[in-house]
Amino acid sequence: MQRHTGRDMWDAEECQSPRMGSVILGVDGGASNTVCVCIPAAMPFNDPLPVLSRTVAGCSNHNSVGEDRARETLERVMSQALLKARRRRSNVCAVCLAVAGVNHPIDQQRMLDWLREIFPSHVKLFVENDAVAALASGTMGKLHGCVLIAGTGTIAYGFTSDGREARAAGAGPVLGDWGSGYGISAQAMTAVVRAYDGRGPETVLTNNILDFLGLASPDELIGWTYEDQSWARIADLLPVVVESAESGDEVANKILHNSVGELASSVKAVVQRLELGGEDGKHPFPLVMVGKVLEANKRWDIGKEVIDCVTKHYPGAYPIHPKEKILLTRGSKICAVYMAICLKST
Amino acid sequence: MQRHTGRDMWDAEECQSPRMGSVILGVDGGASNTVCVCIPAAMPFNDPLPVLSRTVAGCSNHNSVGEDRARETLERVMSQALLKARRRRSNVCAVCLAVAGVNHPIDQQRMLDWLREIFPSHVKLFVENDAVAALASGTMGKLHGCVLIAGTGTIAYGFTSDGREARAAGAGPVLGDWGSGYGISAQAMTAVVRAYDGRGPETVLTNNILDFLGLASPDELIGWTYEDQSWARIADLLPVVVESAESGDEVANKILHNSVGELASSVKAVVQRLELGGEDGKHPFPLVMVGKVLEANKRWDIGKEVIDCVTKHYPGAYPIHPKEKILLTRGSKICAVYMAICLKST
Repeated sequence: MQRHTGRDMWDAEECQSPRMGSVILGVDGGASNTVCVCIPAAMPFNDPLPVLSRTVAGCSNHNSVGEDRARETLERVMSQALLKARRRRSNVCAVCLAVAGVNHPIDQQRMLDWLREIFPSHVKLFVENDAVAALASGTMGKLHGCVLIAGTGTIAYGFTSDGREARAAGAGPVLGDWGSGYGISAQAMTAVVRAYDGRGPETVLTNNILDFLGLASPDELIGWTYEDQSWARIADLLPVVVESAESGDEVANKILHNSVGELASSVKAVVQRLELGGEDGKHPFPLVMVGKVLEANKRWDIGKEVIDCVTKHYPGAYPIHPKEKILLTRGSKICAVYMAICLKST
Repeated sequence: MQRHTGRDMWDAEECQSPRMGSVILGVDGGASNTVCVCIPAAMPFNDPLPVLSRTVAGCSNHNSVGEDRARETLERVMSQALLKARRRRSNVCAVCLAVAGVNHPIDQQRMLDWLREIFPSHVKLFVENDAVAALASGTMGKLHGCVLIAGTGTIAYGFTSDGREARAAGAGPVLGDWGSGYGISAQAMTAVVRAYDGRGPETVLTNNILDFLGLASPDELIGWTYEDQSWARIADLLPVVVESAESGDEVANKILHNSVGELASSVKAVVQRLELGGEDGKHPFPLVMVGKVLEANKRWDIGKEVIDCVTKHYPGAYPIHPKEKILLTRGSKICAVYMAICLKST
């Protein structure tokens, strides 16, 4: 496989008259999209932060789109963020990547080696799973407690105050992340196929999903599915499943209830291993909730059901929903993790 | 995407001194491998058949490997079979493709158009799902009864004597073919991840699968899985799951029992829709069983369990296991379907 370096992305650097001042690049990469912010290196860590520029691209999880495409996306958001902030790579003093799909020290090292080809040796480099950024975004940079991400993918990640960490799920659709947006959507499509061929009960998901995708018959679903297997494309069916459940459909309701069980089980596994609830399970700890599956704000509120399920076992868990939709807070999520990682690494 | 036509595969035709006589090409393409046989057009349909040549290649299911790679594989087995038989395309009077992934009239038409670019207009072309070939291989060409394929993928397909047909499953792993070799293996890997992160019970699958793959830790499974998502590669774990179940592991046993339920449910859905068991459900009909999941011949005999499950509802179902492993009989499977399709189309 030919390695796509995308080095030509940096050509534009030469054409601009740069501003002065060191900057930090913070990247938050998930299975649906990737955000990069460029912030001044010397600044008070206030909220809101003085974000110099912000750029967005698609998925950068190498397990979903492959390594070449993931790196191309990361390199593009970083080069565009610098260009927009009128800075060059020589202005960068640190890069913090928080990316879904970084599951193993090997993934981390590969990413660091690749970043080092782009940025000179004095630039500090940090690479973490995006769940670390998500946790820090809810705790204003402190790595303590548990975060649950449920967007296109899902992962639960936790830290104790003394630096121990644990995770559950985050292994992608082949390895059973059933509570995720992808998982819910794939199960809904499966229910349509099963109803059609006689293995499962009738469901309004059939009409609702076919309408949404503009398909005429359930047997067209197979072709649609394998035409492009990006996880995000399949996860986009989530609102259709929630609406179908809200209309009273039993099959859709069962899928969402299963999803709640799966997501709560990920959180509980992390909390138990790290003993975040203390010996009696009742100690308080933050439970940061991130991702479109948990932010539905519909009558069928998956996030609320997950919290109910977790607090039955761990009544000290207090949910935090980071204000994801505010641009600068979104920026601060990445800066927060930068701070957190710097603290962790010193 | 650039279309790979692979027309250079046919260059060798020019260099050979061909034998005389019209031939038929029969291709049986699954998610693991693709077999092509070249047989004389004018011959008695005996068993064994006078197969002139037989060639084998990898997966030709376009949903698994993409359209370009699937077509390249099909074109390669056909050109090599002709070369080996010392025939040219001008000797071919009919081509019969029975390929997994042909799920919709659109798939069929695309394949026919593509074959027409390779073979001139007088050559008869037939394209069907590979389940049709599998059924015919068990019934000596007669399209009546039900076939269950469970190899890398799974599908149940049935025909009534008056030509009505129905299918269940065969929608690939995203759409819930859980009884397949892929489905069983993916669930086993999921069980390993769940045991590792605390969501599921301990299982010997962990040691057995890591040993088999040469991995040191369960968190390396994620990287291994997404490195190459060909369905056949994952389905190769099937023997490890069967051995683990035979050693008494509860998790592995549960996965295999689920698989039996899924496979039996596919068969029952087809039998019910076609009323193959008659009004009282007791009429006799052939149930052809094909694929490595059903041929395990171990103490844990998935095929036998499926038959037990089906015959509880449909006592008239009589199982047939085509002698897959005999070269010429394998050849005759394809000829059988050629005959069956010709009969159907006249």
